[in-house]
Amino acid sequence: MVGTDHRPPSRPPDHVTYLDRIAACNRHDLSRYVPFSVAGASVGWLRRDRFGWLRQNAPSLRVSDDEVALDPDLSTFESRSNAMGDVVESLVTVGEVIPWHSELYPVGTSFAAEPLLQIERVAVPYFGISAYGIHINGFVRKSDELQMWIARRARDKPTYPGKLDNIVAGGQPIGITLHDNLVKECAEEASIPPELAQQARPIGGVTYCFETERGLKPDGLFCYDLELPADFEPRAADGEVESFELWPLARVAEVVRDTEEFKLNCNLVVIDFLIRHGAIPADDPDYLEIVRGLRSWGGH
Amino acid sequence: MVGTDHRPPSRPPDHVTYLDRIAACNRHDLSRYVPFSVAGASVGWLRRDRFGWLRQNAPSLRVSDDEVALDPDLSTFESRSNAMGDVVESLVTVGEVIPWHSELYPVGTSFAAEPLLQIERVAVPYFGISAYGIHINGFVRKSDELQMWIARRARDKPTYPGKLDNIVAGGQPIGITLHDNLVKECAEEASIPPELAQQARPIGGVTYCFETERGLKPDGLFCYDLELPADFEPRAADGEVESFELWPLARVAEVVRDTEEFKLNCNLVVIDFLIRHGAIPADDPDYLEIVRGLRSWGGH
Repeated sequence: MVGTDHRPPSRPPDHVTYLDRIAACNRHDLSRYVPFSVAGASVGWLRRDRFGWLRQNAPSLRVSDDEVALDPDLSTFESRSNAMGDVVESLVTVGEVIPWHSELYPVGTSFAAEPLLQIERVAVPYFGISAYGIHINGFVRKSDELQMWIARRARDKPTYPGKLDNIVAGGQPIGITLHDNLVKECAEEASIPPELAQQARPIGGVTYCFETERGLKPDGLFCYDLELPADFEPRAADGEVESFELWPLARVAEVVRDTEEFKLNCNLVVIDFLIRHGAIPADDPDYLEIVRGLRSWGGH
Repeated sequence: MVGTDHRPPSRPPDHVTYLDRIAACNRHDLSRYVPFSVAGASVGWLRRDRFGWLRQNAPSLRVSDDEVALDPDLSTFESRSNAMGDVVESLVTVGEVIPWHSELYPVGTSFAAEPLLQIERVAVPYFGISAYGIHINGFVRKSDELQMWIARRARDKPTYPGKLDNIVAGGQPIGITLHDNLVKECAEEASIPPELAQQARPIGGVTYCFETERGLKPDGLFCYDLELPADFEPRAADGEVESFELWPLARVAEVVRDTEEFKLNCNLVVIDFLIRHGAIPADDPDYLEIVRGLRSWGGH
């Protein structure tokens, strides 16, 4: 199965649209993958060309033609996590997974389901496990116009260096609530004090699935709107952001639509903001297709 | 193919959730249908048990085992509309389509595509043609709390008599823009003057597909938010609405979640409002599934 192409066939090839950004987050070819299952439940996707290495080097994984399964005798969260930790260590040794920082992600059948094990964040795409994150739209209301704070990612970040980003965005590790993670990331990434961060409102989410060299990313983002006072200025605190700029919404829309300046998945968060705040007219020929495309991956 | 069941299998059977309302709008069994095509493009769905009657009584339709096609020799909008008009007239004669009021809907491959023909609204579900509508969330901001205007449909309406509804909602006929239709429906259904109606903002949409005795409804709704002044009171102007009431958002949420008081598709419009205005917490176990489910039909 080839990933959904969101562009109707009749569209002229040079017509630039928000759907291009959505399509870019949904490029994948599942025929190259088999389900990865734990305790009888499908929790991820493994690429077939990795079977050889896994058969040789991952004794806790049962590799068959149409599934890779973690040893079913591993019956506890801890034993499963330890076994997968050994596999990840071997992957790091051979350079298949790049060590970055230790951050553990839950692995289960959905975001809400009891995790079956935990695994290093960097190894999550290798196993095609769904990861989740929080993204915050930080905006300012100036009379009738909305402006949005845009972050430029540090040039030395391992992923998407120098790309544009939401004011605050972070992965959702195990053992912390969405709310506490939001308050923590607000402080770390943009020096937003807790009492201000608390005012962020959950307003929806986006889902997508794309393939990288590292593997498959079938992810979900919880999105928040945070209206900021006109005199507040975000400051990078942890070195992940190079600078912040306040843009009129029309400019944000233009850059998202016409360029690839934003980090891939941030485009979806911003397009959702544009839709929700009336910045895309309902008679845009792609309107319902955009609204649908923003959460087109259903494997959650 | 049986319609998507949005409830994860692990959910206890008595757990009431917004997903139940979404599932109710998506019950269908496409295996009972074949595509209905016009000018080589699929534009609807016809139920197999209607083939016999169509073969006998609809000379302009080519009925085969896996498709019903309008005579390809009909090459213009007008000739196709006339031929389909004859079929609809015969359907009215035998009581398969109930005459109601003349209102013509466009038929095409998508909302934005050039219509291939026009057809009476009442016959749209018989042919499984996608219909579109506009739904308005009329709300009032009282300090920190939101309140929503709820309409109760007239008891003598042919569809969903006495059910709860959005303050303004209407189908989208051919030959009028979404914006003009919105202004017109605002005046007709709730006596909202044009200058106030203009302030409605497009904020997204919902899609769904459900089956009724009449046929298939694979529909899309364009949704708008309209903030109303505290002293404005909607008044029914065209007899479609029995009464209006202003409810705190918490009560709206409760009634949508726990009852079937709302007209089927209005539930989705209201749930989308609740999501966008932060009235459903992001850690609701169904959160991303709700957001996705609100536009789960992709045949647009």
